[in-house]
Amino acid sequence: MAMKRIGSQTVKMSNPPSIIGTASVVGPKEGDGPLKNYFDIILEDDLWGQESFEKSESKIQEEAIKLAITNANLSPKDIEYLFSGDLLNQIISSSYTARQLEIPYFGLYGACSTMAESLSLGAMIVDGGFADKVVCATSSHFSSAERQFRFPLEYGNQRKFSSQWTVTGAGATVLSSTGNGPYITYITTGKILDLGIKDVNNMGGAMAPAAIDTISQHFKDTGYTPDDYDLIITGDLGLVGKKILLDLMKKEGFDLTNNYSDCGIKIFDRAEQDTHAGGSGCGCAAVVFNGYIYKEMIKGNLDRVLLVATGALHSPIITLQGESIPGIAHAVTIDNLVV
Amino acid sequence: MAMKRIGSQTVKMSNPPSIIGTASVVGPKEGDGPLKNYFDIILEDDLWGQESFEKSESKIQEEAIKLAITNANLSPKDIEYLFSGDLLNQIISSSYTARQLEIPYFGLYGACSTMAESLSLGAMIVDGGFADKVVCATSSHFSSAERQFRFPLEYGNQRKFSSQWTVTGAGATVLSSTGNGPYITYITTGKILDLGIKDVNNMGGAMAPAAIDTISQHFKDTGYTPDDYDLIITGDLGLVGKKILLDLMKKEGFDLTNNYSDCGIKIFDRAEQDTHAGGSGCGCAAVVFNGYIYKEMIKGNLDRVLLVATGALHSPIITLQGESIPGIAHAVTIDNLVV
Repeated sequence: MAMKRIGSQTVKMSNPPSIIGTASVVGPKEGDGPLKNYFDIILEDDLWGQESFEKSESKIQEEAIKLAITNANLSPKDIEYLFSGDLLNQIISSSYTARQLEIPYFGLYGACSTMAESLSLGAMIVDGGFADKVVCATSSHFSSAERQFRFPLEYGNQRKFSSQWTVTGAGATVLSSTGNGPYITYITTGKILDLGIKDVNNMGGAMAPAAIDTISQHFKDTGYTPDDYDLIITGDLGLVGKKILLDLMKKEGFDLTNNYSDCGIKIFDRAEQDTHAGGSGCGCAAVVFNGYIYKEMIKGNLDRVLLVATGALHSPIITLQGESIPGIAHAVTIDNLVV
Repeated sequence: MAMKRIGSQTVKMSNPPSIIGTASVVGPKEGDGPLKNYFDIILEDDLWGQESFEKSESKIQEEAIKLAITNANLSPKDIEYLFSGDLLNQIISSSYTARQLEIPYFGLYGACSTMAESLSLGAMIVDGGFADKVVCATSSHFSSAERQFRFPLEYGNQRKFSSQWTVTGAGATVLSSTGNGPYITYITTGKILDLGIKDVNNMGGAMAPAAIDTISQHFKDTGYTPDDYDLIITGDLGLVGKKILLDLMKKEGFDLTNNYSDCGIKIFDRAEQDTHAGGSGCGCAAVVFNGYIYKEMIKGNLDRVLLVATGALHSPIITLQGESIPGIAHAVTIDNLVV
């Protein structure tokens, strides 16, 4: 067993990569929400001058990556690898962004777990000595996602109360082999779990078992307890998933009541914004992490965070064939100080 | 610059991971072709007892991974990470396979470049000390791909001569931090290139510029020349792409006439099998690599191979919106001896 492995699903960085720049770009609805002061760019309309929602999503991701690189005082040619993915078929938002940037590119698909998947791979590649500077990114768009996964918006379909609202937004993180933090210190990689949920309007329920599995394993592998974290935050379990997670984590022996939250709950004002169970999508964890969490860490208001981005690997074609929706969750520890 | 980097797009492994087991599973047409004696399992029908082509593709990938692990004298619980992806939306073949195997999972999307993408990331993670044993895998299925990317087979659509035939098959590679080779020694990661091709029946043309870019960069970064390789093989450029590649590589100053081939050309007998420009799909490079190339390396008939898996990041929705098809190519050097 290699020495960086500290448990069945966790590795500890030997030279923790530093976050040296981030950026977040969000749509108008996200920019109206409780986290509005944390985002770098808030769009006035969600097409952003493009002809389609898909092209708009690409532009959002491209601008987020460019801004993160600028915020790190670098230019795209300084970046050795780009790790990115998104929800659209053939991850077109990411591929067309990578075409514009001309950075060696690893395309990922982890559904809404992509922010943590990209940070995991990016951090290991830097820690392993293969690169000095990488970018990890993802995006989602309410309108491109709705028409791909559920119904075209023009149908005016009524939303269930367990549904979530796909975030329009993109986030990008520049990781470096040197820097002053925050640092990525531990990575716990998820397995796919599927407890048989087939309701495409209850993604939180589909993803919660995977989040519980990954968080529990993270504590077992690292020896950390919930109290060692200032914040443990899942990507987009929403209200339904949050309740399941808190209940079942307690049964596993971990009380997360005091320091647990979910990016999908934090990003919208439920009473004012009519988003039912909360936000979702790759962009949800991406903008909350690269906006809110990163900036609170820089200010010193949060010192150690466990980001657990959660993905529902929902596929319209295979759901129509009677299959249930598998979930996955990847966890990344971000530390202001390296211990 | 970290010391494992030896050029703008290439890294050299410091402890080259060894391939300790592979497997290939192919459909009936592939099992009738010139490479039939190299495959581990040849299906009698391409549904393999499943209700849909998509479920069949998942089963094909799952059996390929399980067999590769068995061939490495291991069991799934010995594997620390699974790196896999495929062509289907939401990479369902890979996700549903990962659900069955319960191995920590990184989902990838690189279209038909996935075999080299998974080997690149898997090798770096092992070389970086994060894992001792990983599996890299991918699959494709003619019938699931045709209906997703072009037309349902029931339409009886006529195929153009520049079209390729998506391979039904899956390949899997077990990489280990210890072993007797063949070894992965160099990794050259591609950038996305797009020269404006919009014809979904000419994927070879769309991918050739990316392959040329990656192979040229590989020679510049490593100092190798074409003669240093026993075989330089692209994933699925087919006859159209092969001609472009040989011509343009010559203009770049590299003569590949003597030792270049393409997995898509090798897998089918053009005269007998009516596959027009050749084979394609993630499974094409996967089964040719894990079947033919690996077994010829073990026999000592090939000692150093450059596998250049090529991906056309074709998306039906964005092509309908007028966009061209970007290509990417990732290259991996496989060596019988570590220099």
